[in-house]
Parts: sequence; structure tokens; C-alpha cells
Amino acid sequence: MTTIGVVYHSKTGNTKKMAEKVVEGIEEAEGEATTVLKTAEETDEDELLNWDGIIVGSPTYYGLPSASVKDLFDRSVTHHGELEGKVGGAFTSAANRGGGNETTILALLEMMLIHGMIVQGTSKKDHYGPVALGKPDERALKGSRELGKRVATLCAKLFG
Amino acid sequence: MTTIGVVYHSKTGNTKKMAEKVVEGIEEAEGEATTVLKTAEETDEDELLNWDGIIVGSPTYYGLPSASVKDLFDRSVTHHGELEGKVGGAFTSAANRGGGNETTILALLEMMLIHGMIVQGTSKKDHYGPVALGKPDERALKGSRELGKRVATLCAKLFG
Amino acid sequence: MTTIGVVYHSKTGNTKKMAEKVVEGIEEAEGEATTVLKTAEETDEDELLNWDGIIVGSPTYYGLPSASVKDLFDRSVTHHGELEGKVGGAFTSAANRGGGNETTILALLEMMLIHGMIVQGTSKKDHYGPVALGKPDERALKGSRELGKRVATLCAKLFG
Amino acid sequence: MTTIGVVYHSKTGNTKKMAEKVVEGIEEAEGEATTVLKTAEETDEDELLNWDGIIVGSPTYYGLPSASVKDLFDRSVTHHGELEGKVGGAFTSAANRGGGNETTILALLEMMLIHGMIVQGTSKKDHYGPVALGKPDERALKGSRELGKRVATLCAKLFG
Repeated sequence: MTTIGVVYHSKTGNTKKMAEKVVEGIEEAEGEATTVLKTAEETDEDELLNWDGIIVGSPTYYGLPSASVKDLFDRSVTHHGELEGKVGGAFTSAANRGGGNETTILALLEMMLIHGMIVQGTSKKDHYGPVALGKPDERALKGSRELGKRVATLCAKLFG
Repeated sequence: MTTIGVVYHSKTGNTKKMAEKVVEGIEEAEGEATTVLKTAEETDEDELLNWDGIIVGSPTYYGLPSASVKDLFDRSVTHHGELEGKVGGAFTSAANRGGGNETTILALLEMMLIHGMIVQGTSKKDHYGPVALGKPDERALKGSRELGKRVATLCAKLFG
Repeated sequence: MTTIGVVYHSKTGNTKKMAEKVVEGIEEAEGEATTVLKTAEETDEDELLNWDGIIVGSPTYYGLPSASVKDLFDRSVTHHGELEGKVGGAFTSAANRGGGNETTILALLEMMLIHGMIVQGTSKKDHYGPVALGKPDERALKGSRELGKRVATLCAKLFG
Repeated sequence: MTTIGVVYHSKTGNTKKMAEKVVEGIEEAEGEATTVLKTAEETDEDELLNWDGIIVGSPTYYGLPSASVKDLFDRSVTHHGELEGKVGGAFTSAANRGGGNETTILALLEMMLIHGMIVQGTSKKDHYGPVALGKPDERALKGSRELGKRVATLCAKLFG
């Protein structure tokens, strides 16, 4: 039994929609997982300690996660070293292709690596993590579901 | 009168097509510019010295420029310091969105920054540089033309 | 006569010290420049419009600029397109080498490119922008001065 | 019993020295692992299939892996999809701090993520992977050993 937190920031609802699909993907994975779905603002940095997997979604603002999402990571410094070995994943919703979506996801993954976390890419489509351009289309929603499943599967192997 | 080199690597012809549009864009810019269009393999590192602007295009191979394009930059080390202040730009052709196209362009720009070169983004569409997904569509070709024009305009201001 | 804003966020004083050296560098450059030195929190996004050059410094927090610095860029979206063609530069103060300092500077430069701004690297030492590890040493302070001079020189060429 | 390949490119011997320490680290880890140590040039892309973990080291050339290392990844496309779920790690030897070492390591990790591989950072010191500045000092050698141990430990958990 593992626990996975899905944390997002969403103003237009696009990133939120992806977050909900990530949760569905976690539930589809083999092995039982409890899922927590919260916004970055309402996530206390102490909660990160309770989760085996942490999946974070942010809108693409200037090619990076929003200040709200960044603020959660800045606050997480009180637990530096304690997230070592947890599994991470990231997704984003952007205005257009080539507009900073990959750099947003990589920024999220970089912060996870600095925490000593474990991340996985995918050899199919959005390699670093799922990207929606505008309102998430079928492809972006499917990618979000697959991200949830991928993280949950890895969590089950490592902590299940 | 400025000189701008457009260097590319292309296997399928997609990046080459973009390169040709970059050349068109240079010609549209105000101020006269001589343009040199070559593949990365046929570009001798000494030639870089002759150009005020250097625009490089590569296919996206594993989220980075191809080994051929990288090899040109590796060879350019003999002229380290001598490209300082030149203007650069980058473009790429990738298989799909979210598949490493932004990281390819940023990798190209990083190499230019390490040479002390000057690069400019754009507030519209593909911010770091134009991206084609598969066969370049109208949008990618227009972005390529705009990149050529942007670099030529900056070269004219700085060296014209 | 050009105007250059130096914006920073600093908790320990390390990034602030670098910011002050950046200002010294601007004053050393040929061509007159007015300099404005402010923290990211006290910088209103409207002020960005008044500056020909914008140099931003941030501590390295999880391999990225701090949430305060990010927040300034998020707020700058009201002026998206209006910073096109301005000159940018970035610097950071980090806890240790290999600890995210380069990714912090690149994140700052990426945001500037998305605004359509112009950035320049250097072929010497800290290529993307000056990095201090802990309390800024002579090397970091010299690099900061050089950054100020580099941006001011480019501003003078383009807008002087 | 797992198998881990350590692949490097080294001209001055610095990256090679780190590679040897990575191997030592693998041997220190709990769980038995067979190690293969090779240069990028002598590594056939087919061999990648035999390894549970792939650790790659490159000198920092213009902020990216060398063309030889890039060429191995370009060749690996024949096995795209088949490296999914393998464990990766990266290290680099650079001329100076702030000079592109982090971007080199991230470039290596990006290529691994695009293959669907699993990578882990560390909350201590060189977060993305060990960095040597010039001739590897004690710190860089220790970091290399820890990288080997970290990858071997994760391989043992996942495939042992």
C-alpha cells in the first residue's frame, strides 16, 4: 500500500483537469495506492513526508512553474534530505508548443532530483512528462493517465 | 553589410527546409546581408570567424542537437573566445511536441552563450526558436523566416 | 543615455553583494547609464518598461530562481510583448558547485528569451552568468562587475 | 544479480578516473552486480540492451556531452523503447565551475528520460550527478563512488 500526492496549481482549470486524470491513472495501476489531490497553495510542506510518490503539475508561466508551485518547493527546504528516494513526476499545461512547456517540466524534475528523488521518462510521445496545449485534448489526458500509472507502478515496486 | 551563416544538419529534409526559410527571412530584413547556407559536416570551424551571425538548425535527436552538429561546436574550440559578440539563433525539427524540441534549441543557444555570443528570443509563439513537428507546416516556416529576419536585424544594428 | 535595472532577491546578503558589483560594472562601461537597484518584491512590473537593460539576480533555491523572483516574472505577463528587444542578464548565489546554479541562471535567461529579450554569454569563466558559491569571493565579484559592464556596453550599442 | 554498464569518453583522463570510481561504488553496493566499463566509441548500441543500469560520463564540451557520447545516443535510436525502465546516471568533468557542467549532466539525463529510463538525484552536494573541475579532487571521486552505489542499489531493488 503506497501513498501518492498529486499537487497542482491551476487558474484556468486546464492543469486541474490533467491532475484529475493523473489520479485516474494511479487508480488503474496494479497495487493499491491512496491518492491525495491538492493545490500547491493548500499543500503544507510537512505533508510531502507522508507520500511515497509526489506528482506536481503547473501551468507554464515564462517557461517555468508558477510562483505558487515554486513557493511550495522553496518551503520544502525544511525537509531537505527527507524526500530522498521518493518517486516524482511532472506535468504542465501551456499556451502553445515551443513555448516553454518542456522547460517547465524539466524545472519540476530538477527540483525533485535536488531532493534526491527518483524520476522516470517515457519513450513515447511527451518524454519528460505530459504537456497540454490550451484545453487538454485526448492526447494530453491520456498522457496524464499514463504518468499516474507509471509513478504508481514504480512506487509499488519500490515501496509496495 | 553583414554576413550570416546558416548551418544545418538534415536527414529527412525537414530541417533543410527550415534553413531555406531562415535564409529568405535574412533577405527580407533591412540592411544588406550576405548569406552562407551549409551543412554542419561541410562547415569548417574556421568559417565561423567570417560570419557576424551564426544560425544553427538541427533535428531533435534525444532532446539534443545531432552528433554532427555537436561535432561542429566541439571543433569550434580552436576559436574559443573569437566568436565573442557575434549574434546567434537556433531552430529544430522534431518528431512530436513535448519530445525534446525545446531542449534541443536551448542546447544550441547554451553553446552560443559559452562562446560569448548574443541571442534573442521572441515574445510570440516558439519563444526560444522555431520548432517544426514532422514536415514543417506554415507556422514553422513562418517562424523560420522570422528567425532569419530577427538575427539579420540585430546584426545590422550591431555591425552594419 | 540608457537605463538599466538591477533586480535581486537576497536573504543572506550574498546575492545583494553581487548586485552591488553589477551596478559598479555598469558604471565602468563606456556610455552613460542610469542604474536602478531594487529587490524583486519592491519592483513593480510597470517599471520594467522604463529600462533598456534588465539584470536579475536570485539565490539558487532548488536549482531555480526563488519564488519571489519568479513572482516578478509572473506579474510581468501584463506587459508581454513590450519588453521585446531589451537586453537581459542574470546572476546567482548558490550553496555549492553542481548544486543548481547553472540551471538557476538559465531559468532566468529563458524567461527573458520568452519576453523576446536579448542576452549574451561570455567565453570566460561563468559562461551563462556569474555564480557565487556561498559568500561571493573575488572571482564572483569580478564576474558580477563584468556582467554589468557587458550588459551596459550592449545597451549603449543598441540604444545609446 | 544485475548488470551495470559504465560508459565514458575521456581525452585527458579526468572523466576516465571518475568512471573507475563509479565502478568501485557499484562494487560497494549491497547485492551483486556485474560491471562493464567501456568508452562511448567502443560501445555498440546493442550492448545497452544487456544492462539493467547505464551510467554515462562525458567531458563538458560547450555545456553538453561530447559528440562521441552524443553519437552513442544517436545510434541507440535503433533500440528506442527497449531501454524503458532501466536505471541511469551521469557524471562529468569540466574546466571550471559555472562553465556548463550542470547542463552537461542534465543533457545526459534528458536523453535517458527520453528512453523511458529511471534516474535519481541526490540531496547532497552535486545534486544532478558528480562534477569534477579539472583533475578530479577527493570530493569529485567520492561523488562518483556514491553515484555508482546509488545506481547499483536502485538496480538491486528493481531487478535484483
